[in-house]
Amino acid sequence: MTSQPNHVTTGPIIGSRKILSPTPCRPDILVPFREVALHPTALEPPLQLYDTSGPYTDTSITIDLNTGLPSPRTPWLAQRGFTTTTARRVQPADNGFVSAELIVPECPAPRSIFNGAENGLVTQYEFARAGIITEEMIYVAHRENLGRTEALQDAASRIRDGESFGGAIPEFVTPEFVRAEIAMGRAIIPANINHPELEPVIIGRNFLVKINANIGNSAVTSSAADEVEKLVWAIRWGADTVMDLSTGRNIHNIRSWIMRNAPVPIGTVPIYQALEKVGGDASKLDWEVFKDTLIEQAEQGVDYFTIHAGVRLAYVPLTARRVTGIVSRGGSIMAQWCLSHHRESFLYERFDEICDIMRKYDVSFSLGDGLRPGSNADANDAAQFAELETLGELTKLAWHKGCQVMIEGPGHVPMHKIKANMEKQLATCHEAPFYTLGPLTTDIAPGYDHITSAIGAAMIGWFGTAMLCYVTPKEHLGLPNREDVKTGVITYRLAAHAADLAKGHPAARLRDDAISRARFEFRWEDQFNLSLDPDTARSFHDETLPKEAHKTAHFCSMCGPKFCSMKLSHEIRDEAERQAGLDAQTTAFKQSGQQLYVPASQHR
Amino acid sequence: MTSQPNHVTTGPIIGSRKILSPTPCRPDILVPFREVALHPTALEPPLQLYDTSGPYTDTSITIDLNTGLPSPRTPWLAQRGFTTTTARRVQPADNGFVSAELIVPECPAPRSIFNGAENGLVTQYEFARAGIITEEMIYVAHRENLGRTEALQDAASRIRDGESFGGAIPEFVTPEFVRAEIAMGRAIIPANINHPELEPVIIGRNFLVKINANIGNSAVTSSAADEVEKLVWAIRWGADTVMDLSTGRNIHNIRSWIMRNAPVPIGTVPIYQALEKVGGDASKLDWEVFKDTLIEQAEQGVDYFTIHAGVRLAYVPLTARRVTGIVSRGGSIMAQWCLSHHRESFLYERFDEICDIMRKYDVSFSLGDGLRPGSNADANDAAQFAELETLGELTKLAWHKGCQVMIEGPGHVPMHKIKANMEKQLATCHEAPFYTLGPLTTDIAPGYDHITSAIGAAMIGWFGTAMLCYVTPKEHLGLPNREDVKTGVITYRLAAHAADLAKGHPAARLRDDAISRARFEFRWEDQFNLSLDPDTARSFHDETLPKEAHKTAHFCSMCGPKFCSMKLSHEIRDEAERQAGLDAQTTAFKQSGQQLYVPASQHR
Repeated sequence: MTSQPNHVTTGPIIGSRKILSPTPCRPDILVPFREVALHPTALEPPLQLYDTSGPYTDTSITIDLNTGLPSPRTPWLAQRGFTTTTARRVQPADNGFVSAELIVPECPAPRSIFNGAENGLVTQYEFARAGIITEEMIYVAHRENLGRTEALQDAASRIRDGESFGGAIPEFVTPEFVRAEIAMGRAIIPANINHPELEPVIIGRNFLVKINANIGNSAVTSSAADEVEKLVWAIRWGADTVMDLSTGRNIHNIRSWIMRNAPVPIGTVPIYQALEKVGGDASKLDWEVFKDTLIEQAEQGVDYFTIHAGVRLAYVPLTARRVTGIVSRGGSIMAQWCLSHHRESFLYERFDEICDIMRKYDVSFSLGDGLRPGSNADANDAAQFAELETLGELTKLAWHKGCQVMIEGPGHVPMHKIKANMEKQLATCHEAPFYTLGPLTTDIAPGYDHITSAIGAAMIGWFGTAMLCYVTPKEHLGLPNREDVKTGVITYRLAAHAADLAKGHPAARLRDDAISRARFEFRWEDQFNLSLDPDTARSFHDETLPKEAHKTAHFCSMCGPKFCSMKLSHEIRDEAERQAGLDAQTTAFKQSGQQLYVPASQHR
Repeated sequence: MTSQPNHVTTGPIIGSRKILSPTPCRPDILVPFREVALHPTALEPPLQLYDTSGPYTDTSITIDLNTGLPSPRTPWLAQRGFTTTTARRVQPADNGFVSAELIVPECPAPRSIFNGAENGLVTQYEFARAGIITEEMIYVAHRENLGRTEALQDAASRIRDGESFGGAIPEFVTPEFVRAEIAMGRAIIPANINHPELEPVIIGRNFLVKINANIGNSAVTSSAADEVEKLVWAIRWGADTVMDLSTGRNIHNIRSWIMRNAPVPIGTVPIYQALEKVGGDASKLDWEVFKDTLIEQAEQGVDYFTIHAGVRLAYVPLTARRVTGIVSRGGSIMAQWCLSHHRESFLYERFDEICDIMRKYDVSFSLGDGLRPGSNADANDAAQFAELETLGELTKLAWHKGCQVMIEGPGHVPMHKIKANMEKQLATCHEAPFYTLGPLTTDIAPGYDHITSAIGAAMIGWFGTAMLCYVTPKEHLGLPNREDVKTGVITYRLAAHAADLAKGHPAARLRDDAISRARFEFRWEDQFNLSLDPDTARSFHDETLPKEAHKTAHFCSMCGPKFCSMKLSHEIRDEAERQAGLDAQTTAFKQSGQQLYVPASQHR
């Protein structure tokens, strides 16, 4: 087993540095943020930003993919009484029967494999229900509190407004609040006990809106590092979780590299790998191969599984008159299985057993929306909502078994039908977190579907969706390249943030206000560094005004000095203040009984 | 006066051809559409699309910028009893005192200059109030009816849903409906009587949502054709109107080239040119120079003027505590004028006279929102809404004078504050059409503000905004280049269309459904050709799957054949139909009293 090439993107995002902030109640628990120092003329402290990028942007850490990332959770997990076990033996089918010369070796990073005990507490849900606050809960509470202290102290009443549609966003997030939300099933911390490298993140309607980026293997895998780089690149720009949708050869071994080098929760769709194991023929799938795949991936540390257990036999005919049929890969696989056997889905029938396996490792459910609409024409139809009812039923089952659950949602939905999706999901699925793909608000713009879907994503995020699955410009057309992934992530970050603003998260506007002040004061470098994508902001500016002097110029590049409204605004403000001063003098003059003398103290 | 270079982009948008469709009541009035022929296997007629691109995409017309475009309105205008006049003499100040060697000549296209009579009917508003249907009204009715016949005939009840928030979108648009909407002030047709080249377009809440693109001269003007090309490029991708925001040298003469070659309404902000005439010092502006500029531009044929008459002296101090002050160029110019003279705005004081000039040529008002918020922090504040009240007051005055009016709106507004903007505008401005810039829903994404604003634009368009002013990726950072303009236009086209879908325009979904059917049936070429940007859709597809065979492949490039949900869906559909057939046989068997014989007629 030889070492693999080791090159992934490292180093800080320009204009910021990594800080590790101890949580108030447990100073040994360190939460990463990015800190942007502002220009001295700003007279403002550095601004801290939420940071998904992991150790890759930490200059004090040397990255070696072969040893994997540091494991902050190891001491926490060590206290929970899990037993260790030897790993399930890797079989040729796990890697798609790849030939010896093409095989990518497994990641050599040494890790124990834990099993949760049948009668002990394993999942975050179980701990929460037992009234126990885990280290993960303490961690995410501090992470979510970013800026809340400042917001409370400085101008709480001014900054905090918004409409959260029945949500209950607190001024300040306590670990107990986190616990209570998880215990009610309203939030999850996807955190497999075999993923010690994880920097925990919470997904729920009363927390910051999260985004997911999908990655998948290339047709020709050149190296494990290339696959890990996709993950590193996506989290660098702000992906909160990453789904590995790989198919084909080497997927088991590539996944080992991804897991050992992932600081964010990793999700998968196990039915994809199961289908590969039976040669790509859906009708040949069965419970045994699926079960084996669940265990295989759970042992590797995958944090959440998409399980399409809501695609029931009886629902398949409801899709027959649709404009675009079934557009979920997992959904169509299961529908084909049901039809070809004319039997109820084994995922539905074996759901109890699936829960038992997932609970054992605390793999969270992402209950898949296999019947989501693939076009505006099919939005909110009988098939979609029939499946949602079943997902609600399964949610209760999974909770009963001790599992964490979120629910996947559409898809393609015109604006006026988006709110009904959120309302129905909340009612039907008992407030389990919603995780939607877009939705795309029109079908007429292939090549721009990151935008058609960002419109829907921002809206449904505002209405209460906890996590938004990104869409790249290549959606419907081809495989996203590196630039597409970045565009997709940044687009969804801005949509999630727009949702946070509208929901009334207490500290959401701090960054907007800081960038607006920088803009008004012509602090160009601050404006770049505070933005979601400093590199693009800077390069767009330099395209028109490349000289160094233009980055300190007191006018907009768009209008030039004569037509710069902001420059004029400063002059107006000065003039208004001067006139207000004159008015004050006049008033003082009048009040003083027409004396000509004005006290020196009023000469401000 | 020499000819100028003549090269602008011509030829059809790929996959479509121009058609000219006679209006039902006046077959001599021809309305352009683009027609996309579909693959024979689609068994569908060609789909007609709204077409803003003008004669440039008509292969039967030879474009010569020196002679200008064909003038469809000339025979209509000839019937209206306007007097002709000699043009106001061009003065050196009109072109920014450009030197002889740098001057761009005026466009030599010969045109008469009309004056509307003081006592006759001139504006579309006046005709509408008098109960008279103009040719422009007939034209836009037919243009807006695109697809409505098919929608009504085929599946009206299925396709038509939506929420229009008190709008009154008709199943079918009659010229009388257009007239009534204009007479009520709820819609405008910006159509200067000196712009015979215009293909009329209607802007109002009960019509399709329109978009505007801004263009402006380059620092170094190489040729008039380069400036006309910006217009041609913007309308090629879907701009319904274009605002020429040029400043500096040659603006009068460049404008002559733009007007004579513009098939869409052209808007300007006359205060920009007036400011140039007084050397860039706002305090030196006065009524005389402004009035002269209005007449100059009205004679050239500009269709609508942004007039910042709502920036009153008393409102300026309301901006003093804002995070970003005044961000409208016109607004800041007028605020500075007010403060420096400590006087009420001459635009407000002379509003009657401005109306008289604009009425004479039927230049529509775009009442500028000089105090719009420039950051989320300043959204919906006292300054913004104080100005809106004044715009409502001025709307009534302008109507009284016979003018057409629309109202400009923000800006930067978080999602939860957008609806209040629309509701307040409708109430305060008596349902005059709203024309907003975005709004941007967050300030943290410079470089992506076409997206932050498309979210707000789609929403406010849904709520009732009639026209959306585009924002390009370079907003806040630099001047947009050719690609930025296209990205901005396509982004706003998709936002406007998402709004049309959600409002429940009867025919809005025809294009979505056609593209979704093409997608489901693997008609790749149809999918490209029906999309907003066929070139980008095709090139994105070819980036991953370049071979010609891949454009007829029956699987998605993203997933490959094994994991293609659409391919599986077709198999599922076939299987479901086969099983339905079996079920029917079983039922027939049972119903027939367990006879083994089944009538041949049931063997379908």
